[in-house]
Amino acid sequence: MSDTVLVGLDVGGTSTRALAVTLTGDRLGTGRGGGGNPTSHGAERAADEILAALRGALATVEPTRVRAGTIGLAGAGRLLADPDGRAAFDRAWHAAGLRCPYTVHGDALVAYASGTARPDGTVLIAGTGAIAAEVRHMRLDRTADGHGWLLGDAGSGFWLGREAVRRLLADLDRAHAPGDLAAQVLTALTGSPEVASRPRRTVDAVVQAVTRRPPVELARLAPLVAAAAHRGDPVAGTLIAEAAEHLAATVARIRPPDAADPVVLAGGLLTGGTPLAAAVRAELTRRWPRTPLLTAGDGAAAAAWLAARELPDVTDPDALHRRLLPRPPTAPARTPPAR
Amino acid sequence: MSDTVLVGLDVGGTSTRALAVTLTGDRLGTGRGGGGNPTSHGAERAADEILAALRGALATVEPTRVRAGTIGLAGAGRLLADPDGRAAFDRAWHAAGLRCPYTVHGDALVAYASGTARPDGTVLIAGTGAIAAEVRHMRLDRTADGHGWLLGDAGSGFWLGREAVRRLLADLDRAHAPGDLAAQVLTALTGSPEVASRPRRTVDAVVQAVTRRPPVELARLAPLVAAAAHRGDPVAGTLIAEAAEHLAATVARIRPPDAADPVVLAGGLLTGGTPLAAAVRAELTRRWPRTPLLTAGDGAAAAAWLAARELPDVTDPDALHRRLLPRPPTAPARTPPAR
Repeated sequence: MSDTVLVGLDVGGTSTRALAVTLTGDRLGTGRGGGGNPTSHGAERAADEILAALRGALATVEPTRVRAGTIGLAGAGRLLADPDGRAAFDRAWHAAGLRCPYTVHGDALVAYASGTARPDGTVLIAGTGAIAAEVRHMRLDRTADGHGWLLGDAGSGFWLGREAVRRLLADLDRAHAPGDLAAQVLTALTGSPEVASRPRRTVDAVVQAVTRRPPVELARLAPLVAAAAHRGDPVAGTLIAEAAEHLAATVARIRPPDAADPVVLAGGLLTGGTPLAAAVRAELTRRWPRTPLLTAGDGAAAAAWLAARELPDVTDPDALHRRLLPRPPTAPARTPPAR
Repeated sequence: MSDTVLVGLDVGGTSTRALAVTLTGDRLGTGRGGGGNPTSHGAERAADEILAALRGALATVEPTRVRAGTIGLAGAGRLLADPDGRAAFDRAWHAAGLRCPYTVHGDALVAYASGTARPDGTVLIAGTGAIAAEVRHMRLDRTADGHGWLLGDAGSGFWLGREAVRRLLADLDRAHAPGDLAAQVLTALTGSPEVASRPRRTVDAVVQAVTRRPPVELARLAPLVAAAAHRGDPVAGTLIAEAAEHLAATVARIRPPDAADPVVLAGGLLTGGTPLAAAVRAELTRRWPRTPLLTAGDGAAAAAWLAARELPDVTDPDALHRRLLPRPPTAPARTPPAR
């Protein structure tokens, strides 16, 4: 049994990670590829990135030792409904020398499984966008938000960036001097923290700087909000608190008020001890006092674990989860975000 | 003096109106043209529409009798800064046979002047977008919002439409049956009020219906909110109240808390006795109890009045305003919106 190898892939919009690992938890190899979301990049391109990552992970592993594999990716449902896309993924799998079957799961399930082996719970993901999903019997059930920047993604990186610009514009309308966060946002957008003698000119410059790029790039301003909140800027603190409230309200759309199963926090804004992660933890604890709050871990290892659960000789999936995804002893305290 | 003729033009995004009127208030002619905003249509096209409207207004008037004229349009500042645009407007003016000079003012000033002759006050405009402007000595001073749908326009038609879709999506996430407004919005977007057995499919259909059109078209859903509020739908009522609060907050960015000069309400959402107009009146009265609230009237007549104010023989501009823009005896009560 210790000879059995699993392969897990975590396919994101900007990078793809693959891991080959034994049932005893020995990490035999890792590989990387570029962004492989079939919805945004096309299935062929996604399959190419998956193959590159697989080749890295299997560089020193005999592929016939691999007995199970899982690919986690955003847009999994669309891929499974598309025969051409599925065929492209099959070709990549076989080109890597793999002969075992593989399963495809949504990235939200993989994020959930990277935080806990419990079959029922909730995952909340906040990065550029924001979505919550209910997990039942280790399968995705209902989701909330994930509606995109125009109609949803409340409390996401996009939301934080847009609100930061809105607060700056409100300051300029009022002819108030920009505060800490507003000055940072103004500099990021116009190259200078200076306000013109007619503030409407600065307003126009800010609006034009935003509207000449794709709207989703407002998410790039989110780290400025986190940093200003760390420095104690009250506007940034308010935005973080409002974002946390939005994210908790998204969870509440699908999670009963008396639920006590775990919530896994995932995505760049909720992992790594950010101010938003701390605020979301406080807000979720207020609403669901008995809920264990967990943080997402290694997505590729979680995908490998999901693959192993299908094997008949895996009798204790909880113990396997502890081997593949060792947890830090306690949840991280409120620490500065990783730079 | 009664022989003196004035010309006023109100140039909007979808139509242009011209009026020829005497100082005694005799309306000699009106004309119409298509949308003439030089920012969105180009100055040449705008000038063509202005000429068409002028020819209509001057059909039975000897153009040399016209002693003053004003063109009110959105983007007036950009036009005045553009020599080619200004030359195109000059050509249209002369092609209509006019020999007197003309002035160009922003549409916000014309909207303000259509409601009052008082030289100082505030105008609040809500249609597809939303903007407030301070008027000092009958000139535009500071403005608030007007930042466009991505970053601003809080409380506008776009805002109402987007929030109506957001409430529908929240219902679908929660697996609640859509209420009155939500069912109307669902039908407008997907052609049917039915929710799929997997509500996520309906969510996807709604998101796709919105995102395959220009975002600003969300404003088309605003009349559904007004109609549902009239029928007593609580969600629509909440959205109207929130929009009114946003619009009042926009005014508060530029208007001192103790101000008592008038506020003129303008734009399709704030004229004609809509539920939003009533809510905005209540909210403004709460914040500025001593403020006269007025409603915008005929923009072309207001432009003509602005032109007349420059003439040396106009000694009582208030009396002239009453002649050119007769007011209804009282503000309209809460009546059904015009269809």
